[in-house]
This record gives sequence, C-alpha cells and structure tokens, in this order.
Amino acid sequence: MHAVTELRDALDGADHVQESTSEDLAIKREVFARLDLHAMKDAVIASSTSSIPPSAFSGHLPGRSRCLVVHPINPPYLVPAVEVVPAPWTAACVVERTAALLRGAGHAPIVMKREIDGFVMNRLQGALLEEAFRLVAEGYADAEDIDIGIREGLSLRWSFMGPFETIDLNAPGGVRDYAARYQAMYKRMFADVTGPIDWEGPVMDAIERDRRRQTSIDRLGERQLWRDRRLMALAAHKRHTDEDIGP
Amino acid sequence: MHAVTELRDALDGADHVQESTSEDLAIKREVFARLDLHAMKDAVIASSTSSIPPSAFSGHLPGRSRCLVVHPINPPYLVPAVEVVPAPWTAACVVERTAALLRGAGHAPIVMKREIDGFVMNRLQGALLEEAFRLVAEGYADAEDIDIGIREGLSLRWSFMGPFETIDLNAPGGVRDYAARYQAMYKRMFADVTGPIDWEGPVMDAIERDRRRQTSIDRLGERQLWRDRRLMALAAHKRHTDEDIGP
Repeated sequence: MHAVTELRDALDGADHVQESTSEDLAIKREVFARLDLHAMKDAVIASSTSSIPPSAFSGHLPGRSRCLVVHPINPPYLVPAVEVVPAPWTAACVVERTAALLRGAGHAPIVMKREIDGFVMNRLQGALLEEAFRLVAEGYADAEDIDIGIREGLSLRWSFMGPFETIDLNAPGGVRDYAARYQAMYKRMFADVTGPIDWEGPVMDAIERDRRRQTSIDRLGERQLWRDRRLMALAAHKRHTDEDIGP
Repeated sequence: MHAVTELRDALDGADHVQESTSEDLAIKREVFARLDLHAMKDAVIASSTSSIPPSAFSGHLPGRSRCLVVHPINPPYLVPAVEVVPAPWTAACVVERTAALLRGAGHAPIVMKREIDGFVMNRLQGALLEEAFRLVAEGYADAEDIDIGIREGLSLRWSFMGPFETIDLNAPGGVRDYAARYQAMYKRMFADVTGPIDWEGPVMDAIERDRRRQTSIDRLGERQLWRDRRLMALAAHKRHTDEDIGP
C-alpha cells in the first residue's frame, strides 16, 4: 500500500476503487464524476457512505452501471459485515464481483437487492433503538437494564445466528411455525404505539445520567479502546468456535 | 433439590416460589391463589410467564404485594438475563430482594419499573424482527443477508455492551451527541413506514426457503444442540474476557 497525491495515480491499475470522502452529497457527486472519468474501463467504483443511497451520486455518470455502495462497519478490520448496495442501474455482475472480492478479503458481505435509506444495519439498529428509547421515555426500564437485556440476553444468540435463525430454532416447526405461534403476540404488543419517540429532552437526561454513572465523559476514549479489545477477543473466539463447533 | 407431589410440601420452607405452569391466564390465576394461601408469610411468589403481565393474575390476592414476574430466557443455565416485572401493587422490597437473589445465583436481572406487554426483551426483539420482515417483504434483502448483518455486524458490539453503550461510544460527546448527530437520519429512515408487515404469505415463503437452504427441517433438532454448544462456548468466552479485559 502507498499514498499518492494525484487521483490518476491512485486509479492507475486499480480494479476496485473505494471512495471514502466526507458524507456530503455534493462532494460525492463531484468525486464520482472524476472517478468515472479516470478509472480503468473495467474498474468497479464503490462509495463507503453510511447513509447516502448510490442513486443519489451516480445517476448522471456514463459509467453508472459500475457504481455502488460498499459500506464497511467501524472498525472494518474487526467487523466482518459490510453492506453492498446497488443503485437501480448497477450491473448484476458488478455486485457479484464486489461481493466475491470482499469474501476473498475475509469480509461477510450483506448483498442488498435494491437501495433504501439506512441500508440494512442502520435500519435494524434504528428500529431497536426506537423501542429502547420508548421503554425509557415511558418509564418502563432504565437504559442500563435495556443494555443488560441485550448484552446478557438477546444478543448472545444473535451474535452467532442472527434474528431469523434464532426464531427458526425457537419453534418445533421452524420459522413458519414461530410466526404462526407468536405473530399475534407481537402485533398486540405494538398495537398502542403511535408515532415516533423524541430521543432528546427528559428521556435523554435519564439515559445520559445512566450512561455517565457507568463511564464518565473523560473516560469514553479509554472505554473505546476497551471496546476494540473486546471486539478482537470476540473475533478470535468466533473463529475458534467456527472451527471447533461449526459455523 | 427434590420433587414432591403436594403443593404444601413444595412451599414448606421456601423463601422464593417460582411458578412455571403453562401460559394460560386461568391456570395462573388459580395457581397463584393457592400459592398465596399456602406459601410462608414472607415468601416471594414469582411467575415464569413470558407474556402475561403480573397484574393479570395477582390483583385478587390478599398477598398481591409479594407477587411479580421473573421471566428467565431459554436455556436459563446459559443465558444470564432474566426479567423482573412488578405489578402496580408489588412492594419495592420484593423487587429488590428478588433481584438480589438472582444476582447471587449468577443471573443478570433486568429490573423493570412497571409492567408492559412483552416486557423488555420481547419488545426489543419484536421491533427488530418487524423491520427485518419488512426488508424481506419489500424486496430489499434476503433473510440470510439480514442474519449476516446481525451476527457479523451489529450484534458483535451488542453482545458485550448493549445498544445504549454502543451509541454512547459512537459519538465524541457520548449518547447525547449521538442523538443530536443521528436522530434526524433515523427519523427520515422510518418516515415512510406505515402500519405493520404481515409476517405470513409471500414473505414467509421467501424466508422459509432461505432458512431451509441453511438447515433442513429434519436437522433443526441437531442445530439446536449446536446452538446450545455455541452458547456455552460464548458464556465461557465472556467470563474469561470479563477477567482479562474487564466487563
């Protein structure tokens, strides 16, 4: 790996181009125009954006069929998941080639069939966070108790199976049987929910108080290092357990 | 531990009573009346119910202030989280004593401040599942890709931090800073969502096809054994990592 100061030098010989400029649509549009102009004819051009759908910055380009989003999760050297998001005009072979490249590099691509705001992971995280904020805002539980419910409960299974395999194994006849048994229970649970919760105001005061009791603001940096060490240990554990017990 | 055939014998000398009959409100009401009649004066009476709020089967009892829900997660010897759910009339000291008993037994109690349908964990799971079903139903991603996004992405951090600590470490100024930066993005993401998704019909056909490609129906039992071995390995990993790197 080496750094260069000219875009053309960076693109010279590159089969895969990964754009990682700031999250600003005008910048992405400008940079993609230059990338499409100068990249090799067969190069794939991917954006690391976490929030901008690929159609927003590639539609005006002659080479728009080779453009897509490849959104890595921080820190990318510890988290295998990466979102592959095509625009409506992205060629299927571009998606396939990108997924293969990522798998070859040890990543676990989430290959979306079409784009949507938030992709897959931020939408799932957003749905869970919204309910978590609601439970705190309406006085049912504290933030720390919700964190316990995930880190000592739900997420244990999710961390090696995901939510669909989890429910597939939670009813004798698999996922269809699970939905038949429990869909009515879940619908009833959310029947009273109207509109979104405001994440700021009193609920944020309560959550911040709870969080600061656990980690003071001046120790957040230290706690991030702890997080990355835990992620490393978990990655090693998963690798060994894949070998010992099977993925 | 020993089994007895008479309720009175079971209650004799018990400080904590854990009711685990089937999920039927009429049965719970009848059993709780008998438990309240025969249990020692200071005994706490808890139900293992996963879905019935404690007010539904304890309001008619003279000893209703000692009744609550203690909902363990399957399998309880591998999953530390357990929900402690008071009815409006449950005494605060009963909740505290129960949480202390559970902590002493190596559990991680989620202590709710008041009851709600689905408690904490099924509500969080339900919110995430609803969005997962939506992404499949509307053709954005396959079930397997959603499972990848959780097991190789979001759930890695959640499995040792929970969602609130995760976002607390994802913005320089902590959780309040995170909400200020990203709440608008999340609101925009869900602005178009109207009403719930039907989990059955074509979406279930697609999910079941995806799941059966991974595990055939006759191998679900075997896969459940795999799940429990993975849970055991993960529990051991978490214990060691708590010691090495800190909880």
